[in-house]
Amino acid sequence: MALVGEFPLIARVVARAGTARLADVGPGDDAAVVRTPDGRVVVCTDVLVEGRHFRRDWSSGRDVGHKAAAANLADVAAMGAVPTALLVGLACPADTPVGWLEEVAEGMAAECAPSGAAVVGGDTSASAPDSAAVVLSVTALGDLEGRPPVLRSGARPGDVVALAGRLGWSAAGYALFRAGAVAGAGDGPAALVVRAHRRPEPPYGAGPAGARAGATSMCDVSDGLLADAGHLAAASGVVLDLDRAALAGPGAGPPLAAVAAALGVDPLGWVLTGGEDHALVGTFPPGARLPEGWSVVGRVVDGAPGVLLDGVAAEQVARELQPGGAAAGDTVGRGTGHEHFR
Amino acid sequence: MALVGEFPLIARVVARAGTARLADVGPGDDAAVVRTPDGRVVVCTDVLVEGRHFRRDWSSGRDVGHKAAAANLADVAAMGAVPTALLVGLACPADTPVGWLEEVAEGMAAECAPSGAAVVGGDTSASAPDSAAVVLSVTALGDLEGRPPVLRSGARPGDVVALAGRLGWSAAGYALFRAGAVAGAGDGPAALVVRAHRRPEPPYGAGPAGARAGATSMCDVSDGLLADAGHLAAASGVVLDLDRAALAGPGAGPPLAAVAAALGVDPLGWVLTGGEDHALVGTFPPGARLPEGWSVVGRVVDGAPGVLLDGVAAEQVARELQPGGAAAGDTVGRGTGHEHFR
Repeated sequence: MALVGEFPLIARVVARAGTARLADVGPGDDAAVVRTPDGRVVVCTDVLVEGRHFRRDWSSGRDVGHKAAAANLADVAAMGAVPTALLVGLACPADTPVGWLEEVAEGMAAECAPSGAAVVGGDTSASAPDSAAVVLSVTALGDLEGRPPVLRSGARPGDVVALAGRLGWSAAGYALFRAGAVAGAGDGPAALVVRAHRRPEPPYGAGPAGARAGATSMCDVSDGLLADAGHLAAASGVVLDLDRAALAGPGAGPPLAAVAAALGVDPLGWVLTGGEDHALVGTFPPGARLPEGWSVVGRVVDGAPGVLLDGVAAEQVARELQPGGAAAGDTVGRGTGHEHFR
Repeated sequence: MALVGEFPLIARVVARAGTARLADVGPGDDAAVVRTPDGRVVVCTDVLVEGRHFRRDWSSGRDVGHKAAAANLADVAAMGAVPTALLVGLACPADTPVGWLEEVAEGMAAECAPSGAAVVGGDTSASAPDSAAVVLSVTALGDLEGRPPVLRSGARPGDVVALAGRLGWSAAGYALFRAGAVAGAGDGPAALVVRAHRRPEPPYGAGPAGARAGATSMCDVSDGLLADAGHLAAASGVVLDLDRAALAGPGAGPPLAAVAAALGVDPLGWVLTGGEDHALVGTFPPGARLPEGWSVVGRVVDGAPGVLLDGVAAEQVARELQPGGAAAGDTVGRGTGHEHFR
């Protein structure tokens, strides 16, 4: 088996990176050059740490590549932008199989390809001397296509709260892994949520579509709906009052109920606190016509900034659901962000 | 002592990040938005791993911040661009002192400030479960100010090879650390090279100035002059014939000779193979008027791509110098790049 230490790694990974439509200069120079048609660039970074965000025995290299790209591409979408390029900072042990890293590159390329983006640069290093873990730090660039960015701070009382994408699927898949369930093939509920844990399917198109439809605020759900809706509420200085019945609908879907029943838990815990599906939560002016993929899950009201579920404080709801959901102290399967340090 | 695990880290680090002149949206949303006046963005990533690129007992948090920013800002300069923004991916143990990370943020901000750049975003995670090391992945954005990027591939036979910035200072400082020398204050040779190891001083302005003067190719020296000149030679399909006497001149300077004499080694080893000073090596058409800070150190000739020193193959020279220079297998003090895996 070929190991990283034996090969010029960057060339092998780059060979699988694809080509970014807007790249003037791709990998291989001191820096890449990417065109920015409207004179601005959207840019964000997400860190994925082995043993925190993925496990090599649970996910293939391709899965990790898809997941690392998706976490960043979803942030770009949450600004209302379309992705144009990725860069990858990688620390990995010298005995990492080259084939595994080639798979990571292929997964990233595949996740980017539909949008015309690709990996345009990066850097690699050996892991820290005390560590056998892979650390990936991915940076995504995006294009706002002339639109203003959709910020977290624009929600106003009277707006509707809407959701695009799945909630809780990744957390349900994680719960199955933790329960020792073997991931089956096929399209049964267990296979679907395990696949969702390995490779999120963010609703990329819903970001720009939401922006075009006049979204007043938007946010990627990576730390769990309650947490991320809380970030939006805080930034906007408003209350988001979410509707429990609506949340049990489109974003959750039948597989979640089936898996929850099998494990004897309430699926609402996964829906409210599960991260990493990278749904988008946004707010729209009253009367706005929501684009395809978005559905109303609550409303924006005045008050001390926070999140309510059917009028009850979200913290209280989350506490009650904790035993059935993914525990806050868990590492693998949690979203990114400052919560890792708690 | 306050530890990372006890605090909302991002807010504390961001408070020290400064403000990027061209940022429309800074930290705190799903992504940042940075203006790109000429419709393109230069972008690059460098990874710094504790125990490979820095040691917390040799460098302060501020030093590490300066160094992490400098490695990226020098890559931007090597394209002929000026930096506009940084993003930081950080993995660190939960028991990292918050003050240390605040220092890192301050060091980055200070290194960026003269150019109007600042940290506009990033992500943090706990280190891998098996590791107590800090991993930093920094991404820099830059503005070409309407000029074409200066690539590694543009050197042509007949061009002169020129250098801007220091060579070998960081390697000499590293050699002093390894020899157990205590870093003194003041401006003696030892203090100067130890300071250079902790905080490189890349000749940022020389990048855009070189581009304006018609540089045909340019490259940041982060893996050592012979290695990086080799990258340039390979990309351009030419031979770079370097002049040993010229290299002992401006880039090296008196402190190097003094420290080398004290350690009983030939300073040329540091000059040719030491990385991390982030000098710039470039090529200019014959007769070009070199801007301030650049000096001629060789010429471009036809032949099988490679690097010569006074007509002798660089590999042979490097082998002869190896015992006196920083050893290739060393970890802390080496430049970034694929060599880590060898």
